[in-house]
Amino acid sequence: MTPTGSPAGVPGLLDPDVLLRRHVEDLAARFAGMVSPETVERMVFESYAALGRTARVTAHLPVLTCRFATERLTALAQAKGVLAKDGPEVLFVCVHNAGRSQMAAAMVDHLSEGRVHVRSAGSMPADTVDPVVLEVLTARGMTVTDAFPKPLTDDVVRAADVVVTMGCGDACPVYPGKRYLDWDVADPAGRDRAAVESIAADIETRVRRLLAELGA
Amino acid sequence: MTPTGSPAGVPGLLDPDVLLRRHVEDLAARFAGMVSPETVERMVFESYAALGRTARVTAHLPVLTCRFATERLTALAQAKGVLAKDGPEVLFVCVHNAGRSQMAAAMVDHLSEGRVHVRSAGSMPADTVDPVVLEVLTARGMTVTDAFPKPLTDDVVRAADVVVTMGCGDACPVYPGKRYLDWDVADPAGRDRAAVESIAADIETRVRRLLAELGA
Repeated sequence: MTPTGSPAGVPGLLDPDVLLRRHVEDLAARFAGMVSPETVERMVFESYAALGRTARVTAHLPVLTCRFATERLTALAQAKGVLAKDGPEVLFVCVHNAGRSQMAAAMVDHLSEGRVHVRSAGSMPADTVDPVVLEVLTARGMTVTDAFPKPLTDDVVRAADVVVTMGCGDACPVYPGKRYLDWDVADPAGRDRAAVESIAADIETRVRRLLAELGA
Repeated sequence: MTPTGSPAGVPGLLDPDVLLRRHVEDLAARFAGMVSPETVERMVFESYAALGRTARVTAHLPVLTCRFATERLTALAQAKGVLAKDGPEVLFVCVHNAGRSQMAAAMVDHLSEGRVHVRSAGSMPADTVDPVVLEVLTARGMTVTDAFPKPLTDDVVRAADVVVTMGCGDACPVYPGKRYLDWDVADPAGRDRAAVESIAADIETRVRRLLAELGA
């Protein structure tokens, strides 16, 4: 397992270091004046290491890394007050970021028609979003194609106005000035379609109530 | 669960944000000229969020966060070439950073008498180090009192000369210029004392061979 130009014996794939340095350059330019180049570099590489810890298919990692790092840099710039927020920011946290928090996030986005911005994360992220959860969301008119499980990070907590935890205990940092809610929602992991539909209905009721409270 | 001055309903505990900002100030001074203050701040808060994801006893989190962040900042400064390394740097990675990688790290430190610097991490860190592993290490003359499971981060990979993985698949980023080894060692999780002793003997043989190769 000696690295040459291509990673870990996968011929034809570019060295991730080279690939990721291009994303670092792009993002450093995009966040210039908001986040220091060193922080951008750390954000990209630490996002890569973080997703790599639980990813199964590592070929997509550089693309997911770029999306994850962009979202985290946006959150950081918003938390620092150097980038405006479009509206209230809600963060959903569950254990695997594969079921509950993904459903809640998709519903907030869909039902608020994008007026409420939403992020999601997990304390112990799974390698993929639960396929039954994706089916149930699609059946409800929410086609989620680009969701992936992400570990909970400080930056997205700092950018949030409302943090909703579901089954992840005390895993989420508690900072002043935010509204924290804990929803007692069943875990869809390993459950059949009917059970997941019932969980989705429960989450939707809670999401609608939250959106009404947020005036969205 | 509305935050006031003390975290999540634990009276008498200082707000972690206030406590951690003191560590940020201290570390920013300590790493001045090596790592930017913004990176130090991110390192401390992201280390706090990362350990909090899997910690069971959150009261010790700020102290562990400071140690984890200090180690990561040291690794980052070493990887950037702005802080000298005392000797070869070995990184052990397993799944939970609770058994195999902790044993290997303790043995390298003990057998090289500190001449080889060692770090360890896990792809999915447990909440504590395995108590049977601690017993077995103590019986071998290695009293490990301050070890704790930590997630694998980019900074410690970059600072390493040798990366040894044990059972964590492709979770570790592969970068050029390092020596990567994969050790096929049994997992001590849930095993009895005799089994863990046998695993420890296996790891010790491999560690002695590695140290000989490193000339230590």
